[in-house]
Amino acid sequence: MEQTYKAAGVDIRAGEETVKRIKGFAKSTFNENVLSDLGLFGGFFEFQKNAYAEPVLVSSVDGVGTKLKVAIAMNLHSSIGQDLVNHCVNDIAVCGAKPLFFLDYLAFGKLNPETASSIVEGFSVACKQNGCALIGGETAEMPGVYQEHDYDLSGTIVGVVEKKEVIDGRRICKGDVLVGFQSNGLHTNGYSLARKVLEKFSFDQKFDELELPLGNELLRVHKSYLKLITHLKQETKIHGFSHITGGGIVGNTKRIIPEGLSLKINWDAWDVPNLFKLIQKAGNISDEEMREVFNIGIGLIAVVSKTEIDKVITAAKTLNETAILLGEVI
Amino acid sequence: MEQTYKAAGVDIRAGEETVKRIKGFAKSTFNENVLSDLGLFGGFFEFQKNAYAEPVLVSSVDGVGTKLKVAIAMNLHSSIGQDLVNHCVNDIAVCGAKPLFFLDYLAFGKLNPETASSIVEGFSVACKQNGCALIGGETAEMPGVYQEHDYDLSGTIVGVVEKKEVIDGRRICKGDVLVGFQSNGLHTNGYSLARKVLEKFSFDQKFDELELPLGNELLRVHKSYLKLITHLKQETKIHGFSHITGGGIVGNTKRIIPEGLSLKINWDAWDVPNLFKLIQKAGNISDEEMREVFNIGIGLIAVVSKTEIDKVITAAKTLNETAILLGEVI
Repeated sequence: MEQTYKAAGVDIRAGEETVKRIKGFAKSTFNENVLSDLGLFGGFFEFQKNAYAEPVLVSSVDGVGTKLKVAIAMNLHSSIGQDLVNHCVNDIAVCGAKPLFFLDYLAFGKLNPETASSIVEGFSVACKQNGCALIGGETAEMPGVYQEHDYDLSGTIVGVVEKKEVIDGRRICKGDVLVGFQSNGLHTNGYSLARKVLEKFSFDQKFDELELPLGNELLRVHKSYLKLITHLKQETKIHGFSHITGGGIVGNTKRIIPEGLSLKINWDAWDVPNLFKLIQKAGNISDEEMREVFNIGIGLIAVVSKTEIDKVITAAKTLNETAILLGEVI
Repeated sequence: MEQTYKAAGVDIRAGEETVKRIKGFAKSTFNENVLSDLGLFGGFFEFQKNAYAEPVLVSSVDGVGTKLKVAIAMNLHSSIGQDLVNHCVNDIAVCGAKPLFFLDYLAFGKLNPETASSIVEGFSVACKQNGCALIGGETAEMPGVYQEHDYDLSGTIVGVVEKKEVIDGRRICKGDVLVGFQSNGLHTNGYSLARKVLEKFSFDQKFDELELPLGNELLRVHKSYLKLITHLKQETKIHGFSHITGGGIVGNTKRIIPEGLSLKINWDAWDVPNLFKLIQKAGNISDEEMREVFNIGIGLIAVVSKTEIDKVITAAKTLNETAILLGEVI
């Protein structure tokens, strides 16, 4: 029998159809620095070298973990791309960088152009919100690696920061305080555990203590802290920022704490949101485990000296954010 | 019963163990422009702005397709990372760019630190060969998306080119010739079809017409054309380069051909390597399908004016590469 790529599970036409659909979304994110059309081998971004004395490119790559299994189960693919962009944006923003461009990787069991374009639309929405150009991507069809309706996605962001404005925690010293800012859900971490303990419920189940049905609560878009971080940098002296992802508050904040110092967290400083309480109860999960796996309500931490606290609170308030004093460097 | 992340299939300790193992590989690729240690939220790369008048950052993202199913089946994970880096390097090199840094994404069904470090060692080997720093990565454990022993990987490369030296095909004109350069195997495309038609054989089977056992032939590392491209740019006037990946010779070269022009390929200009012949025969695959799915022996094409042919041949010869005249722009 004559074999074809399509019979082997790879549909080049579906690939072409996908590219056609997503081009518009990508183009909607372009700015004057983007020199290439899509379809070339690489994405071209003109670097405005005169805007910087000593430019440092800051990059980060991430995925969304098994949050995508929730998106797939609910057949809602429009926000998962936003999750990924915002996650990446936060990771470089906490280093002091502003985003320049983003590239995505999408791999499907069976390429569905509609799903793919829905995901890419999400990338474009979040890229525009964060002033970032979506300049490249790869869409792969990999039968045998992914189940038919499954997919995975990863994204890479590249940003820039002036060398003397890099934020890497080196200014953090004993006595500095940790100021936390609220997350708006699980962001993109802990979903394998959350899904396991919640599997006894359906995603459309409503709970008194939750605003939206369970599945929609789980799909809330990972918050971008770019505006808040930018504002805090302008208005206050920041010693370090920590983006709370896998590893939790301690695991992530330790990444920027100089050797010899450690963290004292006041775990009662804020109310753990109901979604986390529901997960903890459903799985009889220990406090220690919850704190390591989830952000439990805190998505960003700023480390500042005690004398800056008032300024941080005021600056946050202008963006309708509440600053929570939740710990100390010891 | 008390639930934990580990019981849900995500082992944070395995993640930490992996990070420990791969740090050394990544560090071995660092140069004086890499400012950060691993473990921060982003990778820091100082951009030498004075080396360029009008720098353009060129980036590309890719995967290795289901070539990784061959690596997994053979439990040989040391070369798949090299495939990915070289693929990415080629994609920006054909735009005229030289690589600066690379970031990887690795997702496992069940994270195996040994496999992960073997893959990352491959990244580091190829990064060093291509003068590129491995400055970041994400390793995810995603039970339920990937089968236990499966994984996927993607990579993003960022390079730089002087704006006036961008190669994007705009100088290509009617009458230009296509000069091909040999691939050394399937590179990273067509594996879903190849695997399907070859499944009647075992990967350790030897064939008279192949140098290595079948599986090893399939795992030959995607060739990096960076040196060849760099040399050809110096010695000849290049109108365009095409990296032959999914879509084949025509599909890829069309990406750089100005509107209104098309390609005439002399399909008899070179001998299709035996591995492709074996695949074609095993699957009774049509010539058209072979040409669209596989590189069938040609991994890179340079488009030059007729008057440059001799220079290209000579320049290639100094690097032990054979220039093959295989077509024309019409």
